[in-house]
Amino acid sequence: MTAEIWDVIIVGAGLSGLSAAHLLRKRDAKLRILILEGKDRVGGRTMTRELPAAGGVDRWDLGGQWVGSTQTHILELIKELGLEVYPQFRTGKKVHHMGGPTSKVRTFRSSIPTLSPAVLMDFTQLLWKIDRLCATVCVQDPSRTPNAVQLDGMTLHSYLEQHAWTAELKEELGLGSRAVFGVEPSQMSFLFFLMYAAAAGGLLPLLESTPGSAQEFKIKGGTQQLSECLAERVGWKNVRLGSAVTAIWQDAEWARVATAADTFLCRAVIVTCPPHLAAKIHYEPALPSQREFLTQSMPVGHMIKFIITYQTAFWREKGFSGESVAGSSTECPFCVTFDATSPNGNAALVGFISGQQASQWTSKEPEERRKAVLSSLVKYFGPEAASFIHYEEKDWAKEEYSGGCPVNVMAPGLLTYYHPSLRRPCGRIHWAGTETATQWCGYLSGAVQAGQRAALEVLAEVCHVTLTGEEQEVLRCSQTVNGPAKQTSSSKLLCLFTSKSVVIATLTLSSVLLLARRHDALTNIKAYLAGAFSTRKLDFLGL
Amino acid sequence: MTAEIWDVIIVGAGLSGLSAAHLLRKRDAKLRILILEGKDRVGGRTMTRELPAAGGVDRWDLGGQWVGSTQTHILELIKELGLEVYPQFRTGKKVHHMGGPTSKVRTFRSSIPTLSPAVLMDFTQLLWKIDRLCATVCVQDPSRTPNAVQLDGMTLHSYLEQHAWTAELKEELGLGSRAVFGVEPSQMSFLFFLMYAAAAGGLLPLLESTPGSAQEFKIKGGTQQLSECLAERVGWKNVRLGSAVTAIWQDAEWARVATAADTFLCRAVIVTCPPHLAAKIHYEPALPSQREFLTQSMPVGHMIKFIITYQTAFWREKGFSGESVAGSSTECPFCVTFDATSPNGNAALVGFISGQQASQWTSKEPEERRKAVLSSLVKYFGPEAASFIHYEEKDWAKEEYSGGCPVNVMAPGLLTYYHPSLRRPCGRIHWAGTETATQWCGYLSGAVQAGQRAALEVLAEVCHVTLTGEEQEVLRCSQTVNGPAKQTSSSKLLCLFTSKSVVIATLTLSSVLLLARRHDALTNIKAYLAGAFSTRKLDFLGL
Repeated sequence: MTAEIWDVIIVGAGLSGLSAAHLLRKRDAKLRILILEGKDRVGGRTMTRELPAAGGVDRWDLGGQWVGSTQTHILELIKELGLEVYPQFRTGKKVHHMGGPTSKVRTFRSSIPTLSPAVLMDFTQLLWKIDRLCATVCVQDPSRTPNAVQLDGMTLHSYLEQHAWTAELKEELGLGSRAVFGVEPSQMSFLFFLMYAAAAGGLLPLLESTPGSAQEFKIKGGTQQLSECLAERVGWKNVRLGSAVTAIWQDAEWARVATAADTFLCRAVIVTCPPHLAAKIHYEPALPSQREFLTQSMPVGHMIKFIITYQTAFWREKGFSGESVAGSSTECPFCVTFDATSPNGNAALVGFISGQQASQWTSKEPEERRKAVLSSLVKYFGPEAASFIHYEEKDWAKEEYSGGCPVNVMAPGLLTYYHPSLRRPCGRIHWAGTETATQWCGYLSGAVQAGQRAALEVLAEVCHVTLTGEEQEVLRCSQTVNGPAKQTSSSKLLCLFTSKSVVIATLTLSSVLLLARRHDALTNIKAYLAGAFSTRKLDFLGL
Repeated sequence: MTAEIWDVIIVGAGLSGLSAAHLLRKRDAKLRILILEGKDRVGGRTMTRELPAAGGVDRWDLGGQWVGSTQTHILELIKELGLEVYPQFRTGKKVHHMGGPTSKVRTFRSSIPTLSPAVLMDFTQLLWKIDRLCATVCVQDPSRTPNAVQLDGMTLHSYLEQHAWTAELKEELGLGSRAVFGVEPSQMSFLFFLMYAAAAGGLLPLLESTPGSAQEFKIKGGTQQLSECLAERVGWKNVRLGSAVTAIWQDAEWARVATAADTFLCRAVIVTCPPHLAAKIHYEPALPSQREFLTQSMPVGHMIKFIITYQTAFWREKGFSGESVAGSSTECPFCVTFDATSPNGNAALVGFISGQQASQWTSKEPEERRKAVLSSLVKYFGPEAASFIHYEEKDWAKEEYSGGCPVNVMAPGLLTYYHPSLRRPCGRIHWAGTETATQWCGYLSGAVQAGQRAALEVLAEVCHVTLTGEEQEVLRCSQTVNGPAKQTSSSKLLCLFTSKSVVIATLTLSSVLLLARRHDALTNIKAYLAGAFSTRKLDFLGL
């Protein structure tokens, strides 16, 4: 059996691998590039499908779907490929259900739920603390963050136990963890959480659909198009589907890449699959043990995404935005829903069953899961929710060559000891995939950034192409230490303080804090606040 | 290519796999059993080698080496195979070096280091708390432990930060974590730590070499003999070395097991390799996602073990036991050493570079590592340490088909969500390996227990052999809930209180605690104790 010879082989035809291939091709049209993909499609964790809809059929994303205006890498790619974005619909009331199955379902109009004064205080102080910590994180090398060993030695759960005062806020942030990462706060390092937020510009951008946030825009026609357009440009003949890589051998001259059926020779390999799948490839010589230890503790999140199409966007007619959040203490299986009406006007809702809830619901019958989802939607948006056109769901844990969504997190103790091996090339092997990004790590934009960075490494080190100053800067930024991240949502937080209610609340909090500096006093603060504000709610940010 | 047909295929010829095979063979001599092993030897994480010694050559263990009198499974096997144990030598002074490279090297004779009164108090209260928590742990199903979500949501590091008062005790327990698990306290769930200790009868048995503890006895001729004797009994023709399993397919009738060269058919498979390696096998149909998520967060420890042979046991002559412990703040690369003189009288020391220290030292030149080890031994035991006969080391992270030692730990959040999939069979696949044990999990004895339990599962479910009442009880105990573990070291702790010094110290502590119930008061306690006892040390337990 003679092996085919290529210049660069890319493992994975997701957005990261195809972005790498695209950049390589643009910089050197003669490069022979082969992309090997286990799935029978391109797109990785993006996947667009036609579903029955009010107007016949339309396209929806069953995987990654959002982009934001601060996500420069993906926006440039969208522009280059001639695609268009449209804003996430967010006009109207949002539903908020926390505190147990029998608790009242509330609505709010601001970007942050209408919280009781005590919880609001709590949220304000916690956001303030987290944002200040985010500002100290060195995304390129988190081990250089002040107090890194402490921050990486604890879980997000532990941090919340210590620094959130109210059970309600803990439930809110558990929901946030589930919605953003697909895991529970107990499953990730607090330093990893901070790094992830810092790479996105702060905590709020992760959670919101406001300008600059992660859930700002969607792509007309779906996100899988990005990979399809890139495959078109790179050449479909260079993309082999159904070709999962099982082994990579390296010697002084070649890297040899094997699938079940073939073996290929090349000068460089870019591995873009998620860390837990990269760990399943057989490497010879073995990878450095630091790299092995890293990928042994980077579990992927668990998300089941559903799209439900309707005859009309009845929720809009009733003044709802379609957004709902539900805590794990309720009987609701999902953590969050959004309006998913298509640019063509085909009405739909999208939602996520995630983390612990995905664990509980994954093994149940589809019919039972659907019934539970619809029952909650009826509770939140009215009986019209039961009369849908089509119900589609995608359990990413069951998708071969993904095994989970949206992202791999890091367990405690990894960043301080093994982080450098996340991006450090191993001989002819270079690492991409959104988990290796330093800007919007975990998002579509991070996938593009990481792919481009890996391509530049290969161009410089293997193809001996002279990089431009700008390109050199890209490599330098992702591999050396640049000091703490600057852009955080602190400034955003300051804006919150212009709200009158918050000023009152904060002043009250400050006075109480001045009077009682002891930890024990927190109980008193809660009691005081509960008394002072009685059951009246501050319509936070909604003034 | 026609596939060979077997009744049971066992993946891994370590102690667990061979114990399973041995039990299967004993219960049904006609069973066709095949054991497939990636390495070119049996024994897994046990490995005995001949090394140059004072009397020519002798045998030492480069992997697992200790057994204890409460480890019934391994002791019965040792007896059955006609092997003999001998006690770990522990007479004489022990070396204790903590608190930075320039701090004084101290010696002690008790089983617990000579600690300052404050640290002693701290240790006493912490051990008391941990032992009380251990007593509440349900080893069979840790998610049923009271407060499981909280305990599993934090790392051991977080627990120590919250409950250990002195920096010195934190350093001691960091050392304990490294020596026992090969990982740092930040890398494991606190509930996992409690479960592991509960499965061993408490925390002290993990740390000590006293009767009933993990480091009590060694096996004459080395521990790899266990696997060699078992392979002999099972029949070497049924053991295929150099045959790493790459894939397991299942259908209604068969399990098909593939190596790079062959495919085998069988009725049942027992997978015994460590979880991070079991995760690399390709399974069809895919394993339940719960199982995948579990093995994505069970990193293996990192240990580099060294054996140094000498002309004479000069340390004994100087009144040392050979035991030394060194904190990570010192410049010493190892965390612990012991006397390793063979039953034939060939003098040797054994030591471990572990956890964070293994990470730092693994990539250095062997010569540099050896120099650092010897330099510390000279500091601790005198200049004779430099004149050795042979220096042998084994970096388990670099051992193919092990990738680390001694055990896989669990990151936070696993036990509460995914634990049942640790032992739950997946169709025709049954799980063994020491990580799946419920008694002395992580030890040789746990490997035997787990292998025997998996063999019983196969006998009952696949071979339809009627199990004895005792055997049924074994299955019941490992798979159902039996309530909290009973046997802990609490009783041992009570004995400590008979020591006069400890009574005085405890009374002092109690009074101060009664006077000051607040958290802030701890600072005062420390100041008070420091003043009251000045620099005088209590020779704890050495009275």
